[in-house]
Amino acid sequence: MTKPVLRVGLIGSGFMGKAHAFGYGAAEKVFDLPFRVELHTLADASPDLARNAAETLGFARATDDWRAMVSSPEIDVVNITAPNALHKDMALAALAAGKHVYCEKPLAPLAQDAREMAEAAEAAGRKTQVGFNYLCNPMLILARDMIAAGELGEIRSYRGIHAEDYMADPNGVWGFRHDPAGGGAFADIGSHALATAEFLLGPISRLMGDTLTVIDQRPDGQGGHKAVEVDDIGRAFVRFANGASGSIEASWIAMGRKMQHDFEVYGTKGALLFTQERFNELHFYSADDPAGRRGFRRIEAAPDHPPYGRFCVAAGHQIGFNDLKAIEVAGYLDALAGKAPEPFNFRKGLRIQSLVEAVHASSRAQAWMDVA
Amino acid sequence: MTKPVLRVGLIGSGFMGKAHAFGYGAAEKVFDLPFRVELHTLADASPDLARNAAETLGFARATDDWRAMVSSPEIDVVNITAPNALHKDMALAALAAGKHVYCEKPLAPLAQDAREMAEAAEAAGRKTQVGFNYLCNPMLILARDMIAAGELGEIRSYRGIHAEDYMADPNGVWGFRHDPAGGGAFADIGSHALATAEFLLGPISRLMGDTLTVIDQRPDGQGGHKAVEVDDIGRAFVRFANGASGSIEASWIAMGRKMQHDFEVYGTKGALLFTQERFNELHFYSADDPAGRRGFRRIEAAPDHPPYGRFCVAAGHQIGFNDLKAIEVAGYLDALAGKAPEPFNFRKGLRIQSLVEAVHASSRAQAWMDVA
Amino acid sequence: MTKPVLRVGLIGSGFMGKAHAFGYGAAEKVFDLPFRVELHTLADASPDLARNAAETLGFARATDDWRAMVSSPEIDVVNITAPNALHKDMALAALAAGKHVYCEKPLAPLAQDAREMAEAAEAAGRKTQVGFNYLCNPMLILARDMIAAGELGEIRSYRGIHAEDYMADPNGVWGFRHDPAGGGAFADIGSHALATAEFLLGPISRLMGDTLTVIDQRPDGQGGHKAVEVDDIGRAFVRFANGASGSIEASWIAMGRKMQHDFEVYGTKGALLFTQERFNELHFYSADDPAGRRGFRRIEAAPDHPPYGRFCVAAGHQIGFNDLKAIEVAGYLDALAGKAPEPFNFRKGLRIQSLVEAVHASSRAQAWMDVA
Amino acid sequence: MTKPVLRVGLIGSGFMGKAHAFGYGAAEKVFDLPFRVELHTLADASPDLARNAAETLGFARATDDWRAMVSSPEIDVVNITAPNALHKDMALAALAAGKHVYCEKPLAPLAQDAREMAEAAEAAGRKTQVGFNYLCNPMLILARDMIAAGELGEIRSYRGIHAEDYMADPNGVWGFRHDPAGGGAFADIGSHALATAEFLLGPISRLMGDTLTVIDQRPDGQGGHKAVEVDDIGRAFVRFANGASGSIEASWIAMGRKMQHDFEVYGTKGALLFTQERFNELHFYSADDPAGRRGFRRIEAAPDHPPYGRFCVAAGHQIGFNDLKAIEVAGYLDALAGKAPEPFNFRKGLRIQSLVEAVHASSRAQAWMDVA
Ligand SMILES: NC(=O)C1=CN([C@@H]2O[C@H](COP(=O)(O)OP(=O)(O)OC[C@H]3O[C@@H](n4cnc5c(N)ncnc54)[C@H](O)[C@@H]3O)[C@@H](O)[C@H]2O)C=CC1
Ligand SMILES: NC(=O)C1=CN([C@@H]2O[C@H](COP(=O)(O)OP(=O)(O)OC[C@H]3O[C@@H](n4cnc5c(N)ncnc54)[C@H](O)[C@@H]3O)[C@@H](O)[C@H]2O)C=CC1
Ligand SMILES: NC(=O)C1=CN([C@@H]2O[C@H](COP(=O)(O)OP(=O)(O)OC[C@H]3O[C@@H](n4cnc5c(N)ncnc54)[C@H](O)[C@@H]3O)[C@@H](O)[C@H]2O)C=CC1
Ligand SMILES: NC(=O)C1=CN([C@@H]2O[C@H](COP(=O)(O)OP(=O)(O)OC[C@H]3O[C@@H](n4cnc5c(N)ncnc54)[C@H](O)[C@@H]3O)[C@@H](O)[C@H]2O)C=CC1
Repeated sequence: MTKPVLRVGLIGSGFMGKAHAFGYGAAEKVFDLPFRVELHTLADASPDLARNAAETLGFARATDDWRAMVSSPEIDVVNITAPNALHKDMALAALAAGKHVYCEKPLAPLAQDAREMAEAAEAAGRKTQVGFNYLCNPMLILARDMIAAGELGEIRSYRGIHAEDYMADPNGVWGFRHDPAGGGAFADIGSHALATAEFLLGPISRLMGDTLTVIDQRPDGQGGHKAVEVDDIGRAFVRFANGASGSIEASWIAMGRKMQHDFEVYGTKGALLFTQERFNELHFYSADDPAGRRGFRRIEAAPDHPPYGRFCVAAGHQIGFNDLKAIEVAGYLDALAGKAPEPFNFRKGLRIQSLVEAVHASSRAQAWMDVA
Repeated sequence: MTKPVLRVGLIGSGFMGKAHAFGYGAAEKVFDLPFRVELHTLADASPDLARNAAETLGFARATDDWRAMVSSPEIDVVNITAPNALHKDMALAALAAGKHVYCEKPLAPLAQDAREMAEAAEAAGRKTQVGFNYLCNPMLILARDMIAAGELGEIRSYRGIHAEDYMADPNGVWGFRHDPAGGGAFADIGSHALATAEFLLGPISRLMGDTLTVIDQRPDGQGGHKAVEVDDIGRAFVRFANGASGSIEASWIAMGRKMQHDFEVYGTKGALLFTQERFNELHFYSADDPAGRRGFRRIEAAPDHPPYGRFCVAAGHQIGFNDLKAIEVAGYLDALAGKAPEPFNFRKGLRIQSLVEAVHASSRAQAWMDVA
Repeated sequence: MTKPVLRVGLIGSGFMGKAHAFGYGAAEKVFDLPFRVELHTLADASPDLARNAAETLGFARATDDWRAMVSSPEIDVVNITAPNALHKDMALAALAAGKHVYCEKPLAPLAQDAREMAEAAEAAGRKTQVGFNYLCNPMLILARDMIAAGELGEIRSYRGIHAEDYMADPNGVWGFRHDPAGGGAFADIGSHALATAEFLLGPISRLMGDTLTVIDQRPDGQGGHKAVEVDDIGRAFVRFANGASGSIEASWIAMGRKMQHDFEVYGTKGALLFTQERFNELHFYSADDPAGRRGFRRIEAAPDHPPYGRFCVAAGHQIGFNDLKAIEVAGYLDALAGKAPEPFNFRKGLRIQSLVEAVHASSRAQAWMDVA
Repeated sequence: MTKPVLRVGLIGSGFMGKAHAFGYGAAEKVFDLPFRVELHTLADASPDLARNAAETLGFARATDDWRAMVSSPEIDVVNITAPNALHKDMALAALAAGKHVYCEKPLAPLAQDAREMAEAAEAAGRKTQVGFNYLCNPMLILARDMIAAGELGEIRSYRGIHAEDYMADPNGVWGFRHDPAGGGAFADIGSHALATAEFLLGPISRLMGDTLTVIDQRPDGQGGHKAVEVDDIGRAFVRFANGASGSIEASWIAMGRKMQHDFEVYGTKGALLFTQERFNELHFYSADDPAGRRGFRRIEAAPDHPPYGRFCVAAGHQIGFNDLKAIEVAGYLDALAGKAPEPFNFRKGLRIQSLVEAVHASSRAQAWMDVA
């Protein structure tokens, strides 16, 4: 039986554009996908950029006209990995043309825009995906399942963070992540921390934010400077609907940190510790272990933890960052084929966006806010 | 030249009473103290308790009458390791009798009481010490000195926590730490996290608290139950006078955690990571290391880091928790001899108490508070 | 400019067969390969196995007749991932047909066979590759370069190990790795430890072996048992031509270990520690760091460490096990295109095989042996 | 009931002399000793050294005549912490005078001397102790008990090491540890690794050694140089009487290592990992844990692990190096009081010495040797 073909149009070929292309490539071999993937067209900001990237990444065609591409009848799904401010126009155009859309996070700079996108997708009856790839980690899936199965008992508290240092240097040039509309550390990576928190513990119901601008101007890349208004550091107290309390933190100026997407979950019967710095491990404390033999157990990713076994039949060999994207692709394609629900659709992307905005609004108001 | 004698009266012989006795014993051998220490009298809640403890811990006399002891002309310094609610009466009585006083943290359940104690000490011209022993760690002293010397550049952010799980079991009996006046996780151990934060970065100027009661009743030890009002978990956003922002957290129900007194400090030129779980190590990231060779450096405690060398001439052999108390004793005795300022006197103990109360007040008010 | 096509024939689709297929897929996108790779034919033990694997792994054709495939004029390079005992016949046939050959380790069960293969390759003027993928890790390349550049000073000692537990269960069925001719833990994974040792420090000149059989029979998979003669644990003292001494260890019954491919290198000016359990890190101690600031530095894989940046533009995101294979593929293809020397050809594979045999011979003779 | 007095005479006040004094001090408070300890006399190489040390360490008298001290009727037990070459004369003199003797390791430079000492102690009916303090660690006691109780199943293999870097600098001056008779890394610290190995797994029955001199001359402290013949690095393959195989390693030039007294034990049902760098932890893997939940469990020292609870009633607070000596003192005093067997007497000290010599003899002979 031959598989139906899925024709992919990708917009952007930077950090994430490459990750999407790698993800499709790996997913086709690693998983039993419901489609044969055809990397049809790559759109980028200029013809040259597009042509070079298409060649390297294995796309058959290249264009600098994303509008043409997203409405072409030859495309089934549009992947958006362009800067945040462009997500909305691109997604709406693609949806209007009847395409499925796989868009990088954050869905849009503003929650209002994200809402329009989610509603457009639902109205069009198209399937969508937002790129919260850390959730695709077998160890996060394990953590979520352990929590859901009650292995930690009732959850009491949570501590989540996403910190890196790629903006630590004040001489780093002003970029799209500094856009006053929807930029900043909490939108950029705090969003990952929020997504992980809700993935594991369910909805946040209330929060109190505290966001700060530390570096208030940056070189504009043309010899001058540009003011920066967005946050470099953000923190939030949170309450979950399940009764647990917690905190979420984001920083892109945490000198020395490259990938501190970490969490700690404490329950009545156990606890979990995780750091993305060693993301093939999950540390589990069980109060049910015998006295004198308790301790945090370093569980290494193994075929016991799907879909790790797809990548490697032997435990402890480890998957890489790009493999997370392959898992994301596979999950989305199952949804496109109607074999599974959408793993993280625009509605969920909107949810994260709303949480980010609530953190900022609460910080400005210096008051707790409901987010139910 | 013979040293003057310092006659010690100790109240209490529980966890901390023992630690004080061990501390005096070790300090005398490890340091060149300005006094010959005489463990004169141990006071406890009953004659039997006192006698047994005096014998084991090496005190010459025992009593169940701490009032008599603190006013005896044969005592020079009074060590208070009784439950929190007794600290004030004991300290005031001792100060009134002209004694120096070395009191466990928290100085008193209420800041108002702590203030009275600090003022009494100053009025009496006596020297005082509060038991924030974690500050005595050579690696914390190193951290403070590195920060002060600018090795991290300008400090941008801070993340402090003190979490343990000794109250995680709801069947743990109601005790003095649950006293509605001044009890709770933030007072008990959040105070350590606050002390460490200010030790390293200087004064906190503003904060926003969030404290919660998770286990709202406990066995009263007599077949019934008693309501619990104090916090099991507490969090705070903070601003430091030096401009840095941060967070402080406390939990005594963090299942699996035995000694998570941790911090992370991020500056413009470097960072420090520390966990009390491995308190003979300090992890240092220097942005000045050559490209491709940067990383957090695990510095092991060594004679380079005073006063570690007093305990051991060889690096990496490690000091223990009780050794922190020996360092505390030695620092206080130097102050008593006029050779150094008081390391952490009642005024500083009051400061921590005020911060704890501000966290609670801010939490109740759901509003930021100045603490300058 | 269109790239020349490289038509790949793969034999085997188990653990390593998949890894090769994944490796080609990723390499094409991640690297700028000198060829366009065509996954031409997959050969396996039966038509069904071959057909299914070809479909999943993206090969155009399938066959159960590897002999036909390796001599087909439509194939340029033959990848051998079949059981060890088949490597020789397959490789010789492929070389005889003028193909380049990329064979999994160990090159052949016996050094004599490996020698024949190396000589055949050289006689045929074909380019070869053996699958010692751990050497493709950017952190191992970094380690090698640091040592070569003298950053550790003169090397004094080495401690290498490769231990896993996949054979720890005595009820694990007899398989090709238990073949008396060339099987055993030292051949299977000790070979990796030897390859890493020589990769980092240069040639071993003398060694003394100690290999043991712990589990001396295993189920034969048909209700009976089969005797096992090969080693489960092996150790060796070694001397390197550069004057350093060291030890190498291998175990496939190290309960709890999934991927302990570790080394420690000590020099006059510094040291390196590495574990494959966290293979995106390298720990570096520099005696040149200032006093009181020395310690092992956890360097995280980053674009500073080629070819990491090919996979990800951001530091600390981590590559996975399969990515090592992609790097191996890319290096080999550069060699095939004449752009670089063969990274690890049959001659080098033979070298490792000779070392393994020397370990066994020395163990039997209970005597040191030269291996120069 | 008043306790009998134990009058201690200590020879030496360097690294270990201090540790003994600290140990007595702490042991008296921490344990319920069967004696009241009187630090009677301290003997050192000169009157000044002795007097200063006596004062600091709390000994009542000082002398530069150890012979007079060890035969004085006022001394009950003699502690020897002088350089290795003096151990024998001192111990024999003390035993001849009817004293109990507590001698630092190695018992004597040569096994023949150690044998004389052990026999003298037995003939005199005196109780003895050798200072292998690492065995006093609650986590090593736990490890031994777990192994004995079968929690790891049958033991298959062992990997022990003791490496530091205090001799890494070739400009470090020639000292007693370089004495051709009985000096060297294996005698000095390899002895610790051997003691730990036999403590955990029982007797070694066969071994094959490999010891090397790396730094072959050192400054003599007087402007010249002195040849060094003793080993800087030593390795041994071992067989245990219980059937397990293993390796032991020692190095005092392992740049960057301060206290790598580590072991790994692998059994049929589990494994243990330990490093003295974090000696309040023991890592335990149990194959009996449920699938998908297995991993090395970081057990932190706690009151569950005697005698930790003597030092601290709370888990995870950690003991220090000097506390190991206090435990050693307490165990020996119990033996002196007839309440327990001698923990590690001269006979056992001789055993370790014989093993060290066997390692050297085997290395010279380049042949395996029985050591039963
Ligand atoms: N899921 C994750 O872990 C990550 C997600 N992201 C997200 O991915 C998105 C892209 O970020 P990066 O890849 O880091 O940025 P990038 O700057 O590396 O790449 C952006 C790409 O978009 C292209 N582009 C810009 N304007 C365009 C236009 N008008 N038409 C077509 N193409 C255009 C650029 O030429 C470039 O190829 C962002 O939304 C970001 O938040 C980024 C990094 C990690
Ligand atoms: N610095 C640190 O790291 C720590 C400080 N603490 C502080 O030490 C103090 C004592 O705590 P623990 O030692 O854990 O308590 P504990 O309950 O172990 O000991 C309290 C002692 O006070 C005695 N006591 C009670 N009432 C008395 C009375 N009326 N007269 C004389 N003695 C009386 C008890 O008999 C007992 O000996 C508290 O303030 C606590 O916050 C406690 C643990 C750690
Ligand atoms: N570089 C590395 O890290 C690793 C290397 N290896 C090496 O890879 C090779 C294969 O090992 P695995 O993949 O683990 O074995 P496997 O048993 O998983 O796969 C072997 C494959 O060879 C096929 N095969 C068997 N007989 C055949 C025949 N006559 N004709 C065609 N195909 C045949 C099997 O059907 C199967 O597809 C071995 O030489 C092994 O040492 C294995 C694991 C890791
Ligand atoms: N158990 C352990 O972990 C350790 C054991 N040791 C052992 O302890 C012993 C001493 O080593 P360290 O304390 O490091 O040496 P050290 O050089 O620091 O101290 C030796 C002491 O012996 C004194 N001494 C020398 N000659 C003397 C004489 N004729 N009469 C009286 N005293 C004399 C010295 O003045 C000095 O006080 C050695 O046998 C060593 O192997 C040393 C370090 C650690």
